[in-house]
Amino acid sequence: MTLGVAWYPEQWPAERWGEDLAHMRRLGIRVARVGEFAWSRLEPAPQDFRTEWLVAVCDLAERHGIGVLLGTPTAAPPKWLVDRHPSVLQTDRSGRARPFGSRRSYSFSSPIYRKYCARIVREVAGTVGEHPAVVGWQIDNELGCHDTTRCYGDDAAQAFRLWLEARYDTVEALNAAWGTVFWSHEYRDFSEVDPPRESQTFGNPAHELDFRRCSSDQVGSFVAEQAGILRALSPGRPIGTNLMMCAGEFDERKVAAELDVVQWDAYPVALMGFATDAESVAAVGRTGDPDLFTFSLDLFRGLKGRATWGVELQTGNVNWSRRNLLPAPGALRLWAHAATAHGADLVGWFRWRALPYGPEQWHAGLLRHDASEDRGAAELPRLAEELAVRRPGPAKPPGAPAPVAPSQVAILHDYEDLWALQLGPHGPYDYWRHLLGEYTALRSLGHMLDVVHPNADLSRYRLLAAPALHLVDEALAGRLAAYVEAGGVLVLGSRAGQKDRNSRHVPAAPGPLRPLAGAVARNWESGHPALAHSVRHAGAEHAVHMWVTSLEPTEPGTEVEAEFTGGLFAGRPAVTRRRAGAGTVFWSGLCAGPALTASVYAAALDAAGLPAQPLERWERRSERDGLQYRFDWAKAEVDLSWPLP
Amino acid sequence: MTLGVAWYPEQWPAERWGEDLAHMRRLGIRVARVGEFAWSRLEPAPQDFRTEWLVAVCDLAERHGIGVLLGTPTAAPPKWLVDRHPSVLQTDRSGRARPFGSRRSYSFSSPIYRKYCARIVREVAGTVGEHPAVVGWQIDNELGCHDTTRCYGDDAAQAFRLWLEARYDTVEALNAAWGTVFWSHEYRDFSEVDPPRESQTFGNPAHELDFRRCSSDQVGSFVAEQAGILRALSPGRPIGTNLMMCAGEFDERKVAAELDVVQWDAYPVALMGFATDAESVAAVGRTGDPDLFTFSLDLFRGLKGRATWGVELQTGNVNWSRRNLLPAPGALRLWAHAATAHGADLVGWFRWRALPYGPEQWHAGLLRHDASEDRGAAELPRLAEELAVRRPGPAKPPGAPAPVAPSQVAILHDYEDLWALQLGPHGPYDYWRHLLGEYTALRSLGHMLDVVHPNADLSRYRLLAAPALHLVDEALAGRLAAYVEAGGVLVLGSRAGQKDRNSRHVPAAPGPLRPLAGAVARNWESGHPALAHSVRHAGAEHAVHMWVTSLEPTEPGTEVEAEFTGGLFAGRPAVTRRRAGAGTVFWSGLCAGPALTASVYAAALDAAGLPAQPLERWERRSERDGLQYRFDWAKAEVDLSWPLP
Amino acid sequence: MTLGVAWYPEQWPAERWGEDLAHMRRLGIRVARVGEFAWSRLEPAPQDFRTEWLVAVCDLAERHGIGVLLGTPTAAPPKWLVDRHPSVLQTDRSGRARPFGSRRSYSFSSPIYRKYCARIVREVAGTVGEHPAVVGWQIDNELGCHDTTRCYGDDAAQAFRLWLEARYDTVEALNAAWGTVFWSHEYRDFSEVDPPRESQTFGNPAHELDFRRCSSDQVGSFVAEQAGILRALSPGRPIGTNLMMCAGEFDERKVAAELDVVQWDAYPVALMGFATDAESVAAVGRTGDPDLFTFSLDLFRGLKGRATWGVELQTGNVNWSRRNLLPAPGALRLWAHAATAHGADLVGWFRWRALPYGPEQWHAGLLRHDASEDRGAAELPRLAEELAVRRPGPAKPPGAPAPVAPSQVAILHDYEDLWALQLGPHGPYDYWRHLLGEYTALRSLGHMLDVVHPNADLSRYRLLAAPALHLVDEALAGRLAAYVEAGGVLVLGSRAGQKDRNSRHVPAAPGPLRPLAGAVARNWESGHPALAHSVRHAGAEHAVHMWVTSLEPTEPGTEVEAEFTGGLFAGRPAVTRRRAGAGTVFWSGLCAGPALTASVYAAALDAAGLPAQPLERWERRSERDGLQYRFDWAKAEVDLSWPLP
Repeated sequence: MTLGVAWYPEQWPAERWGEDLAHMRRLGIRVARVGEFAWSRLEPAPQDFRTEWLVAVCDLAERHGIGVLLGTPTAAPPKWLVDRHPSVLQTDRSGRARPFGSRRSYSFSSPIYRKYCARIVREVAGTVGEHPAVVGWQIDNELGCHDTTRCYGDDAAQAFRLWLEARYDTVEALNAAWGTVFWSHEYRDFSEVDPPRESQTFGNPAHELDFRRCSSDQVGSFVAEQAGILRALSPGRPIGTNLMMCAGEFDERKVAAELDVVQWDAYPVALMGFATDAESVAAVGRTGDPDLFTFSLDLFRGLKGRATWGVELQTGNVNWSRRNLLPAPGALRLWAHAATAHGADLVGWFRWRALPYGPEQWHAGLLRHDASEDRGAAELPRLAEELAVRRPGPAKPPGAPAPVAPSQVAILHDYEDLWALQLGPHGPYDYWRHLLGEYTALRSLGHMLDVVHPNADLSRYRLLAAPALHLVDEALAGRLAAYVEAGGVLVLGSRAGQKDRNSRHVPAAPGPLRPLAGAVARNWESGHPALAHSVRHAGAEHAVHMWVTSLEPTEPGTEVEAEFTGGLFAGRPAVTRRRAGAGTVFWSGLCAGPALTASVYAAALDAAGLPAQPLERWERRSERDGLQYRFDWAKAEVDLSWPLP
Repeated sequence: MTLGVAWYPEQWPAERWGEDLAHMRRLGIRVARVGEFAWSRLEPAPQDFRTEWLVAVCDLAERHGIGVLLGTPTAAPPKWLVDRHPSVLQTDRSGRARPFGSRRSYSFSSPIYRKYCARIVREVAGTVGEHPAVVGWQIDNELGCHDTTRCYGDDAAQAFRLWLEARYDTVEALNAAWGTVFWSHEYRDFSEVDPPRESQTFGNPAHELDFRRCSSDQVGSFVAEQAGILRALSPGRPIGTNLMMCAGEFDERKVAAELDVVQWDAYPVALMGFATDAESVAAVGRTGDPDLFTFSLDLFRGLKGRATWGVELQTGNVNWSRRNLLPAPGALRLWAHAATAHGADLVGWFRWRALPYGPEQWHAGLLRHDASEDRGAAELPRLAEELAVRRPGPAKPPGAPAPVAPSQVAILHDYEDLWALQLGPHGPYDYWRHLLGEYTALRSLGHMLDVVHPNADLSRYRLLAAPALHLVDEALAGRLAAYVEAGGVLVLGSRAGQKDRNSRHVPAAPGPLRPLAGAVARNWESGHPALAHSVRHAGAEHAVHMWVTSLEPTEPGTEVEAEFTGGLFAGRPAVTRRRAGAGTVFWSGLCAGPALTASVYAAALDAAGLPAQPLERWERRSERDGLQYRFDWAKAEVDLSWPLP
Repeated sequence: MTLGVAWYPEQWPAERWGEDLAHMRRLGIRVARVGEFAWSRLEPAPQDFRTEWLVAVCDLAERHGIGVLLGTPTAAPPKWLVDRHPSVLQTDRSGRARPFGSRRSYSFSSPIYRKYCARIVREVAGTVGEHPAVVGWQIDNELGCHDTTRCYGDDAAQAFRLWLEARYDTVEALNAAWGTVFWSHEYRDFSEVDPPRESQTFGNPAHELDFRRCSSDQVGSFVAEQAGILRALSPGRPIGTNLMMCAGEFDERKVAAELDVVQWDAYPVALMGFATDAESVAAVGRTGDPDLFTFSLDLFRGLKGRATWGVELQTGNVNWSRRNLLPAPGALRLWAHAATAHGADLVGWFRWRALPYGPEQWHAGLLRHDASEDRGAAELPRLAEELAVRRPGPAKPPGAPAPVAPSQVAILHDYEDLWALQLGPHGPYDYWRHLLGEYTALRSLGHMLDVVHPNADLSRYRLLAAPALHLVDEALAGRLAAYVEAGGVLVLGSRAGQKDRNSRHVPAAPGPLRPLAGAVARNWESGHPALAHSVRHAGAEHAVHMWVTSLEPTEPGTEVEAEFTGGLFAGRPAVTRRRAGAGTVFWSGLCAGPALTASVYAAALDAAGLPAQPLERWERRSERDGLQYRFDWAKAEVDLSWPLP
């Protein structure tokens, strides 16, 4: 395990650099991320490249034993580029080109922008790509942040048309797949199709979904172009791009496939600044939501099944939340151990030193504005020692991360399901909240989870949760049936199997999963608290009102695991259970509260022969490579007393 | 009474059509609405007309004894039309042309669009207009939905200028009428006048009101053009267009005057999905607000004083509400009887079968996606039988509907009052809520109401409620005086008589109604709950804070019906009462809560010699042609035990 | 003290004018504001000037002994001007030119608009500037209202570039000052800099701040141009422009420097219509917030240190609030005395008579629509008498107002601090609410305050409150040190000394004030109610959660005035106190509630040797020139029984 930090030497006098590096070293830091956002310093005017300072930074870092994680500067095009080529600007859904002035002012679909990106990346990598200090790359920064994944301008429209033609071949196939006969949306030619710009009311959900897919693929090819250059000019240095928690604007798994390492950012307390639940804020307002944090880590780890690199982790208060709370003493240590336990090999803090100017002038770093150590820095020396004892690692990240051993329980996640449910939630439903609720139930019962794509090797798991496996085709249904037949336990959830890959509603949910589930959905609603349904499970009654489905057994052997005891569906099954081969499939038609969700998962764990160990509200347990951790997020405590292997 | 359904054969394989029609027939359905939104199937390319499939549908319907209610497809222009003539797009208030992508993507003021509409309507009507299956027409669909009535583009500006010139003749007259001297808005020529686009702050309310009038007239002439073609090519088939509940974006009465039948849509439970009052949701969340439903029906009936056709009535959950609740068992039956009692001769369900694709893929139909019968269908056979016994009618609608006998009580409603009060509410006042509150009071006292325009024949009523008869001229005041003199009871409300037809404030409310009311408004406010006024009526005290007026008697004989007993107006009259000729006029300066409103109406009913029969909270009674109904909306029950005639 | 009224003779028949003037006179009114917004009547077509009516108004006013306060009509350009020169329109942050249709439809940066303004002002002033009735001028109206201060169009961009070049000389200096290296915002030339248009996310705060400064200066030069013309053509008549309460969109002090008199508008009850605190509404919903009212008056007085002219004061309900409440009986009298006590020499009511048409048709005047006296007028005769006895003054304002004697306590206010904190509040912090909270504490302790710029003569005060003296340079720090050394008491607040003049964060707050404060800020947060900090002061415990700072003494002699006793900073100082020379400096790191704020100020008053006299919740005491007033805002009462001098 290695500690790192985000460092922007170009923002400070060169005379200060040596002192900063020495100070990092004293705090146990071994990697500095450098270079992102520095385009105007690397190419202050077209083709006027200035990379000497970066070479000097790398030389100095090498001397201090600090590895350099290099960022490509493409998240912030300089003004001269935008002025020269206004077409590179991103156009929003309403048709407005968003002007220069902050960051991410570009369209992924702009061929001109890609040309300039390739040139600056080639220049930087050509200069320092093989420098001994350089230990890896970060492409761009927080791709998709500020709603920048999707561009609705001309370049994007052209890219969309080509993408559609490649996918559907004929416009008739597109019309059939999308159901454009509805509201006379039929196209006569691909050239007639536009991005789904903001119109009077709802557009076609398949149109929207394909535009998300295409936009995601634009991100993928944008990243692949830079990765190709970096691989050629900086061999042996793992390449990644830093992902954000629960963002999901593009298919991070496809993007990760172009890369060597999954990098991530995490601001656990900043996210609490948006929380509205006073009880949670009182308990974990200064440490963050434990499950949001580890769910994200598990998801990132699952993208490649390998260890990850954290490149931005909060050190103090930030500038961008609603309420910018300070982390509790011990929070940084808690996060670093939790990150380690959930697959990280690098934890990079954001940022080295608070900056007096710019949009982040109120953002804390390890050092204060005056270069004194801030609260976060105080935790680092002890933490570095603990990590060195407990999980010794090389001083710097040693090439691409290794695979991480799977858990026994996994939750299925597919970005296309996320998008389809964002585009058609049918009520106040939220995909991430749904998954997190189920994740929390399983974590509260003491389990580690993997978050994996349905195409992953499922045979490694004894229990699979699929709360929102929304777009299901026959092939996937077959794989899941095989998984269950072979002895697996599958828990289908209320949004599973409702649509096909073209976002068309199945004849009856759960669509191709019906033979496996042995039941069919009859009715559902996105309900109202004033009209709650009662459900009985394991002897207890629960009120449910958010996405409720009445199920109907269709196969012999389908048992009623939980029943509606009040409300519109009284007497009908709410959760079914069925043996199939050596395994068992549960199907819950509910988005239920924590108690009922945990109750159903306890039954599923039992069916899987796995223990259920209920934890305290803010207690969590984790394990990696035999090392065990017990966290108390309300007290910001980590218990490492479990035996080392 | 006839049952119908909205059917979109073009969305399903032709092989399925016969089975669908047979199934409809089994459920008691006799009319299918067909063709709306099918433009891209009727004219897939410019002038490439394809109507064979529609002929086949009509032939098949005829064979199954199902009448066809044909929709003109103009609510959704195909992409080729929009691409060829971008000027047809609607431009919103901020000046942005809303692009293709959903529906209603056109400006009522576009001459080009009208030309294409006339052509496709002529083609369709020319082909099947005299087909024996065809029983009527629906022009376009939900005109004005999604804020599409008013266009702010060039065509609309031009139409507005011509409209103004026709209305005012000289620009000096316009300047005088609007009071453009305020803020230097004076015009030198009609060509200088623009639509009231979104500016820094408030615009001139008379300018806005005239733009609403003109935009409404554009809807009227748009409808009239299609109606003219249909009358010529499809003689004897009643023509309508489906109106929405409490929409009021255009003058539905003027539009109805161009048509033979008033058609309407109703989604009672979907509207509850937006409700914030948990108590109402708990009681009628699965049946809808009884008074919103029947008020709309009464209003629609009042547009022509004739029976109406419901063409879209909810069958299950929808896709567009905030919470998409399921209707209670019995809800469809309840609605059908209530619609009958309030003047409907046709009830068409929306829609036949749930569609797998498009924006409405989560919208229920009588059949589920898999063609099995959904909850709604279960109620139909019994309902069809009951209707046949109780209110036998022809299998299909027999030409234009007959007049309906008037009630004894009416509430006055004028779209121009609505618009003027939307443009100048002066606080959180809402016209519809105001009217509905008064309607509820009278309904809770056991009465049927007509909702009629002030120009209707008032002599038929014994009690007239005029809560928001806002724009009043001498002629109208004279008619109301004559009504009272002849023995009628008139209840003026707090927003009555405040302005003239040009939306200018009268010297003192109630303006020309002052001699009749025998009182004048002294002060008013749109108040605050923390500063409520007390009002005593019939021995009880009531707190009032929403729109409060202090009145002052000006004529001998004006009595104080209710008095302010606390607050700023303590000691002053809140409601006055005056005998005039053989009748009585009440004037309430309040927007009061249910108890006080009912208390005042009880007094007014007494003055009119009409009985007041207080009902339970969710109980309502209705009557049509001597048939009596008792509804319990909380239990979704209809009591038909009253004797048949 | 003189009473005035806003009168729009052009909106009424000329035959009515004499009666209106006579009626004003009867009510004790001696000044009528005339002419604002009348451009289309003064120049109905380009260069077609019509000023005869204005001369007639002045003649008639003279005859009735009413002085005329003339408004220049530039707040509302006529349509012909906008049509001829669309470039005069204001362009908003999103890049949209806001169309004609309300008022303030122009950009301060438009050279063409300024040319037309100069021409009409020259014409009007040339005609009536030396008329004996004319007693003063109001330039334009409510500059900056409706977010019109800042224009983002081409003219504004050009003006900004010139302004920046004048300020920074070289683009390198600009880059250094703004810190454009962040996110690659570096400019190569001033021509590359745009206004800070709406981009993906946060822009550079120094860029934004300079754009506010430049836009403010545009307002200043706009005003100066008109003032120059008026001074030449209407000598001896004081020139002002009416400012709004807590607006602060431009630097009112710099603008006032171009003028002779500070004019203001006040709508105390209208502002309560937006209030969400039911308790305050119940108490002062019909009189307004006492401290908001007098704080504004004190601020306006402080702009020039001279008496002010109120030109618009509320008379009844208005049209533009959320809830348009009526003022209590006695409210006008209360306001007039409070205004007098806080420095006003003129109180002009808005408006003379309610107007039937236009956006303000629901706005009350002294007269109702029908010309009868409305509630407000009833208070005037007694009020005029009282004022004549208590504070006799000339019938009309006699040239520029005299200086007003300073109070013993002042609160520092700088528009640039306001802007910097609006641009970087870091959480839900609000500058005005912060200042008002501290102002209320001192007022509740019985004191009169001045609100002054830090560049004012500070030596006149015994206590200076500086809650949000945000942008501090060495010069200002030196002046404050000298003030304290000489015996003054300074109370620094939580947002003081955090940034330099370029909006860069200081190395450690309070920056250059650190030697004086003898302490430094260690950590801070914009907290959460669920995570409150406890602070003990003067023996009492207080919970604090909005902007909390932990302080650290750095100099000998720095004492802990208040300490954190619970929460993250437990044991650390929350408020410090230090003797420096003959004075004392307090530093509070908190935005605290009323009780703790008052407790700290009580200590500071004690240190200053000033009495602290706690008042009832809605009681306030004021004094001017030895005249004492006691106000009860909850009862709308004024006690004038204190002895006259």
